[in-house]
Amino acid sequence: MDKGRLEAFTDGVMAVVITIMVLELKAPHEATLPALLGNWPVFASYVLSFVYVGIYWNNHHHLMHLVERVNGKVMWANLHMLFWISLFPFSTAWLNEAHGMDGGFPAPLPTLVYGVVLLLTALAWIPLTRTLIACNGGAQGALARALGGGWKEMISPVIYLLAIASAFFAPIVSCVLYTVVALIWIVPDRRIERHAMPNL
Amino acid sequence: MDKGRLEAFTDGVMAVVITIMVLELKAPHEATLPALLGNWPVFASYVLSFVYVGIYWNNHHHLMHLVERVNGKVMWANLHMLFWISLFPFSTAWLNEAHGMDGGFPAPLPTLVYGVVLLLTALAWIPLTRTLIACNGGAQGALARALGGGWKEMISPVIYLLAIASAFFAPIVSCVLYTVVALIWIVPDRRIERHAMPNL
Amino acid sequence: MDKGRLEAFTDGVMAVVITIMVLELKAPHEATLPALLGNWPVFASYVLSFVYVGIYWNNHHHLMHLVERVNGKVMWANLHMLFWISLFPFSTAWLNEAHGMDGGFPAPLPTLVYGVVLLLTALAWIPLTRTLIACNGGAQGALARALGGGWKEMISPVIYLLAIASAFFAPIVSCVLYTVVALIWIVPDRRIERHAMPNL
Amino acid sequence: MDKGRLEAFTDGVMAVVITIMVLELKAPHEATLPALLGNWPVFASYVLSFVYVGIYWNNHHHLMHLVERVNGKVMWANLHMLFWISLFPFSTAWLNEAHGMDGGFPAPLPTLVYGVVLLLTALAWIPLTRTLIACNGGAQGALARALGGGWKEMISPVIYLLAIASAFFAPIVSCVLYTVVALIWIVPDRRIERHAMPNL
Repeated sequence: MDKGRLEAFTDGVMAVVITIMVLELKAPHEATLPALLGNWPVFASYVLSFVYVGIYWNNHHHLMHLVERVNGKVMWANLHMLFWISLFPFSTAWLNEAHGMDGGFPAPLPTLVYGVVLLLTALAWIPLTRTLIACNGGAQGALARALGGGWKEMISPVIYLLAIASAFFAPIVSCVLYTVVALIWIVPDRRIERHAMPNL
Repeated sequence: MDKGRLEAFTDGVMAVVITIMVLELKAPHEATLPALLGNWPVFASYVLSFVYVGIYWNNHHHLMHLVERVNGKVMWANLHMLFWISLFPFSTAWLNEAHGMDGGFPAPLPTLVYGVVLLLTALAWIPLTRTLIACNGGAQGALARALGGGWKEMISPVIYLLAIASAFFAPIVSCVLYTVVALIWIVPDRRIERHAMPNL
Repeated sequence: MDKGRLEAFTDGVMAVVITIMVLELKAPHEATLPALLGNWPVFASYVLSFVYVGIYWNNHHHLMHLVERVNGKVMWANLHMLFWISLFPFSTAWLNEAHGMDGGFPAPLPTLVYGVVLLLTALAWIPLTRTLIACNGGAQGALARALGGGWKEMISPVIYLLAIASAFFAPIVSCVLYTVVALIWIVPDRRIERHAMPNL
Repeated sequence: MDKGRLEAFTDGVMAVVITIMVLELKAPHEATLPALLGNWPVFASYVLSFVYVGIYWNNHHHLMHLVERVNGKVMWANLHMLFWISLFPFSTAWLNEAHGMDGGFPAPLPTLVYGVVLLLTALAWIPLTRTLIACNGGAQGALARALGGGWKEMISPVIYLLAIASAFFAPIVSCVLYTVVALIWIVPDRRIERHAMPNL
């Protein structure tokens, strides 16, 4: 089955998610600098979530580049991954809604939930690559070889878990850790690019 | 006429519907676990509606795979099907809005309307396949043979009707039945996959 | 220049417009039949606007089918047409917001504005076809011949003008007239289909 | 790597941005002409932002026309450009929200922020073209030659800076300047069209 529509649907969902989050950026009711600057945590969380969707879109693009065909299992694995991404606007909004509550900034539970959604999105990537490998040459195929041994996939869930654990004690540390993972991933996956475009 | 744009428009509408529903997932006003967990029926209904849109997208993908051309009638049959899918955010929102009303959970009428929208979407699938068969080889063509004798299409409307009937007495039973139909369909339509990709 | 992206962008805008309008369908605050049925004018206006976007998407699909290339002027003519379509959610919302005001139903001015947006969308179709003809063979080309002599394009603006005029005296007549134009157009443009697919 | 998905994702984001802004066009609560006309600054800002997104979409279309391949750096440069475009709904909304505040019209700070977003979008175009040139023949390639010596790219940031500076003293002058830049750009980039379609 052709991979074109799976890519188009994924592009569509990610494009809507990335722009729906901007609806959270409510225009301040006053036309003053303090009103604008008081919004900075909301703005920062929007940037972070935008970057995360960008990372997943980039990685999806690189991943599908080596793929030749998809089947029903791949389509559900992909929808499963998109489900967690569709929760980004919710987890980002709660982080902002709860900002400053409980006497701290940001609030522990929303910080934790933000990380759980990130973790589950990362884990949803595993069945997606597995089902893709299964219908594109198996464990000995080009895709399996291209994807083998990624340290980023290993370390990201560990950092997410650390961030989730620290959300109760120091939510600000969690936010720093979420930013660290984003920075690690902002460089696209060179493994596939190397395989696919050896001249680059 | 080429099928590409019909697929692209369908992908677009479904991608927007699936992500617009997440706007219903309002961030709790408190950063506490009870506030989050109190949201679980809203979350559950979001998951169910997400899965239903996923099922229809998957089935549309499988259906169009065997199709070679479309005409004006197909385009209207497809728009008709998309119309009912575009009501998912409304019926899901009413289910949530009315949650806990009338002393019960969930409320009878919204549960019934949720089922009616599901039923009419399922029925809208019939003219879509009929018009597609008519312009792709007719009753003797490959598409007609591939689609013949589907037990899922038979049983789903029956279960929807049961669920709609039980909405007045036991809305929770209706919700279970909606979930049952989703589980039946979550496996993609093997008939077309078998025809299209005999090696799988 | 390739026509693919112009089609994709148009599909995207129309898909978002058609689904954003559903956000106007607010879930009733009560789980009762009167609360649902009291919503019927909102629902009717949603159906009408959905059908209009469907008509424009269908006609755009048929129009682009005979087109081989586009240029910068076509792109702006297309954006101009999309601009008026992007106002559908606004004019539909005002029709609903103002429903029942001024002691009548629906209110005169929103009914008039709804018609003006429809009229301007119809008029925006003219420069779109003209610029397309100019860069696809000119007045003697296949596109010009296929599009010649359309009675629907002639009669629609006349009916819109009648509806706009009657909005002050009998808004309900205007709504009937808007529905009449939709019914006239719901049959796709046979001229192009005849040319493009002589066997159908 | 193929440029198709980068185009599709960009089309998706721009289509959502352009239609999400219409949500700002709130239907007046009264069905009267003053209520409609009182909305005119909101309507004017919507038209201006619509035209700006249209300009960027048009230029992106023209730019990608000469491009043969993209890489990871291009994808991030493109996402960076889309990030600033995704802020258009926010900056437009604040301009409207703050309209009439501070005893003037429009308010200085939102007018300034609107210009800053425009300026940063324009500046984000530079790394996009640079990364595209780097992976499409370099400084001696066809793309570099086609893009060389654009006076519009030179003058736009200068006008934006003038507009930003005048926002404190005469916000209305800033708005005129934003409109002037839009008018300068509304003619698509003839350089690429000339190269790509010499017969036009």
